[in-house]
Amino acid sequence: MSTDSLVMVDHHCHGLIRTDLGREEFEQLATEATTPPAPGTSHFDSPVGLAIRAHCAPVLGLPPHAAPGGYLARRNELGCAEVARRLLAAAGIDTFLLDCGFRAADLLTPAEMERIGDVSTREITRLEAVLESTAWEGAAHLADGFGATLAAECAESRSVGLKSIIAYRHGLDFDPARPGRREVLAAADAWLRAGGRVEDPVLLRHALWCGVDLGLPLQFHVGYGDPDIVLYRNDPTLMTEFIRAVSVPIMLLHCYPYHREAGYLAAVYPHVHFDVGLAVSFTGPSAERVIAESMELAPYTKVLFSSDAFGLPELYLLGSLLFRRGLAATLARWQDDGHVDAADVARITSLVCGGNALRVYGLDVHG
Amino acid sequence: MSTDSLVMVDHHCHGLIRTDLGREEFEQLATEATTPPAPGTSHFDSPVGLAIRAHCAPVLGLPPHAAPGGYLARRNELGCAEVARRLLAAAGIDTFLLDCGFRAADLLTPAEMERIGDVSTREITRLEAVLESTAWEGAAHLADGFGATLAAECAESRSVGLKSIIAYRHGLDFDPARPGRREVLAAADAWLRAGGRVEDPVLLRHALWCGVDLGLPLQFHVGYGDPDIVLYRNDPTLMTEFIRAVSVPIMLLHCYPYHREAGYLAAVYPHVHFDVGLAVSFTGPSAERVIAESMELAPYTKVLFSSDAFGLPELYLLGSLLFRRGLAATLARWQDDGHVDAADVARITSLVCGGNALRVYGLDVHG
Amino acid sequence: MSTDSLVMVDHHCHGLIRTDLGREEFEQLATEATTPPAPGTSHFDSPVGLAIRAHCAPVLGLPPHAAPGGYLARRNELGCAEVARRLLAAAGIDTFLLDCGFRAADLLTPAEMERIGDVSTREITRLEAVLESTAWEGAAHLADGFGATLAAECAESRSVGLKSIIAYRHGLDFDPARPGRREVLAAADAWLRAGGRVEDPVLLRHALWCGVDLGLPLQFHVGYGDPDIVLYRNDPTLMTEFIRAVSVPIMLLHCYPYHREAGYLAAVYPHVHFDVGLAVSFTGPSAERVIAESMELAPYTKVLFSSDAFGLPELYLLGSLLFRRGLAATLARWQDDGHVDAADVARITSLVCGGNALRVYGLDVHG
Repeated sequence: MSTDSLVMVDHHCHGLIRTDLGREEFEQLATEATTPPAPGTSHFDSPVGLAIRAHCAPVLGLPPHAAPGGYLARRNELGCAEVARRLLAAAGIDTFLLDCGFRAADLLTPAEMERIGDVSTREITRLEAVLESTAWEGAAHLADGFGATLAAECAESRSVGLKSIIAYRHGLDFDPARPGRREVLAAADAWLRAGGRVEDPVLLRHALWCGVDLGLPLQFHVGYGDPDIVLYRNDPTLMTEFIRAVSVPIMLLHCYPYHREAGYLAAVYPHVHFDVGLAVSFTGPSAERVIAESMELAPYTKVLFSSDAFGLPELYLLGSLLFRRGLAATLARWQDDGHVDAADVARITSLVCGGNALRVYGLDVHG
Repeated sequence: MSTDSLVMVDHHCHGLIRTDLGREEFEQLATEATTPPAPGTSHFDSPVGLAIRAHCAPVLGLPPHAAPGGYLARRNELGCAEVARRLLAAAGIDTFLLDCGFRAADLLTPAEMERIGDVSTREITRLEAVLESTAWEGAAHLADGFGATLAAECAESRSVGLKSIIAYRHGLDFDPARPGRREVLAAADAWLRAGGRVEDPVLLRHALWCGVDLGLPLQFHVGYGDPDIVLYRNDPTLMTEFIRAVSVPIMLLHCYPYHREAGYLAAVYPHVHFDVGLAVSFTGPSAERVIAESMELAPYTKVLFSSDAFGLPELYLLGSLLFRRGLAATLARWQDDGHVDAADVARITSLVCGGNALRVYGLDVHG
Repeated sequence: MSTDSLVMVDHHCHGLIRTDLGREEFEQLATEATTPPAPGTSHFDSPVGLAIRAHCAPVLGLPPHAAPGGYLARRNELGCAEVARRLLAAAGIDTFLLDCGFRAADLLTPAEMERIGDVSTREITRLEAVLESTAWEGAAHLADGFGATLAAECAESRSVGLKSIIAYRHGLDFDPARPGRREVLAAADAWLRAGGRVEDPVLLRHALWCGVDLGLPLQFHVGYGDPDIVLYRNDPTLMTEFIRAVSVPIMLLHCYPYHREAGYLAAVYPHVHFDVGLAVSFTGPSAERVIAESMELAPYTKVLFSSDAFGLPELYLLGSLLFRRGLAATLARWQDDGHVDAADVARITSLVCGGNALRVYGLDVHG
């Protein structure tokens, strides 16, 4: 079945980088490592590096599997805007839900993304970014006024969802209870004296519960990411008690290698949804297996598409292309084995690529 | 190789529901969720829902992939007894080991199951059910007389095994030691005062060790199940010390997504066995991968078949059909790759589908 | 692509057993279980047993899938030396990095391995073996002189790496900090009084940090192994803080079923590398899936080959044959799907089978 006429909603991604990139900068955006590659190696020596050379090179007018040097030369020849236009057009994504809360100054704004990608966008508000930008108002405001600040911020940006990175800053093994006012005040005081980013679990939970109050879908980073996480504390079943305590839609992002655990949660809790974005681009040639595994137990009304692309236009194309191919291959096997018919395949594809996001986020694609 | 002449022993399942079912009741039996489906979705929108429409509809005289509404109408037209007869006959299971300790009043008895399914049955005694039914005899009896009560119960029902749901009520991270009499008395006292189901780990361990004393195979719920579990506490390697402490056959049930962990335990402990029942029906189109993974490390003398079917006759058929197909596909690939010959395939199939259960439970199929 | 001209470096294995073997001894070397097989079964009834019969029998002049009895009779007819020569020749491994720190008296020495296998060898020094052999020098020497002893031992054996089995003796959830001198002295005192093998985490960490000081690649047992481990404490992400604290090459061995977790670590930490050795031979017919999964996220500059063979020459052949076949099948699928071209396949194969080991261990194959 052709997926060309699908509505594709990328329910979690970031903006494009503003500038042309040297090789080192490009390589650092093509990896979740935060360090240079190991001596004698390149970040191109990876599944995502292979996928860039295989699938992005032709869009830039090169033969597939172009060497890294030639690829980057061609990229600079075209310029970052033309490269972005070509790769985003090839990605075929209709709507981006953008998390603008990380390195915003380096990235295109939603309005700029709309123009360069010929797409619609909506914003996702990152709880910790709002919390950190509110610090100057003092501990009492953090405790008593953060909910209102968050609501105002969401209203201003017309956000359709929230995002928590408590998995990065603490782990998903957080206390599920809403913290008390006194606890929040003490934690806020300590944080404001110490400075730096928010890592205190009381403050992270306070932000989370203020988010729950807004009733918007709540995205969580889960699993695979940069070396700032401690992976074993990212199993989403660690937050089972929190899931039981709330009724807002929970959107588990990435999830690899805990995508089967995410599928279990999506199967038994009506408000849990998830994707394997990020893992799709970064497993490149192996993305199909990850996608197939994510569909093992989960209702297909609970699985979503995201690219989690950040900075490089290549990552939007790979996220979309590899996801559509992997999903199509999975469903073709299901059909060959007699488990589904063509109408089932079309319906599942439509839901997973966009329909589920439209329903859960209450999006109006013509809005 | 044909598996039609195999002895199929379903070493863990429950009885059929007694009554005709409305759509809502049917959907709730076709999911491990305990809540209605998410707004705008149906429990049919799931791997097991696809599998029911694909594989059960033809047995009821409908085309494969029948729509849910038509499927349920046909079901009611035939009546629950005829539906059960057809689906159980198609399942081709010879012997059911029935856990009658959950919602017994709603389900057919073993004798009724034998008649409707033309099968033989044996019982598995659920430790917690006996414990809860013994409560009225008081704390002293729980501490001192529970072993005798359990033995009498097993003798009366001619049980061939025991089952523990400590994974549900506490987690597999339980203290492996047998609790002392004083501890048991105190816990029994507290429980009898508080009422409700048994969740005290001391009492759960007491029941477990009384079970060990009987020498029967001891089944454990492991992994995937309804939202009453906390999944990360269901990794069976959490009970490594308990496994080391006992020598009765340990039967790990379901195990998904910890089936590789279960395979490791089965590979290094002579008394550990396991299945991926429940995960077979509920992963539907993907069951083959789960079955293949369960065979990666484990000796094929330690892997068993179960459907874990409960209530719906569809689940016996799917458990059996998808297991036989997934096992056959796995072994066919092994044979194509030169790892086994046809005689190996036949022997492994025979052991996994029934031979291992006959040996471990000491069953006499002609008895 | 043919892999026949590859340089194969087995970066972690042990020596061959010295003697002819009876059936029981053979079976115990063909399993990670330390007990006899379950009643009514044989250790041949396993994936590795199938693989021995399928792939080793022809090398000994038998038809594939020979029965265990005939296989062992033929083995004894040829004698252990001829069996070893044939199987090692068929394995096609060029260089063994040998861990000689376990059951050394039962196994061939590196010099003997070189002669019988027509291979080059280098040694890996096992930290805990040196620690235990140093006990007689007393607690003060353990605390203050162990680093020098270890350095001398490595110099004498021209070791190219170190190995820790802290996963066996404690778990990978060890305190990442270097223990203080006073702590080490107290722990050494207690150990020397109690005797037995080293299990005190302070001493294990002391040995580890003395190893770090030497700057050599540091191998860790991770995951699947004999019943002496507690599997859930073998997730390599449990040692994230230790990984962050050091810069020597970290070599995670085996890793199954945590090979995806290992792949994540290898993707984001420049000094982390890993293999799925041991799991390759012991998953036999399913090795390809394990290999494919190990390549999902990891840079292909960080994945290595090892057999982890111990004792039986069959395990060197299976480790090598199944690895080369599984890798070739994985990369062929990548190529069929357009993710790589033939040159990529050749380069990745060359790096994974030997190039990465040559680079990380600083080996000179002609040296």
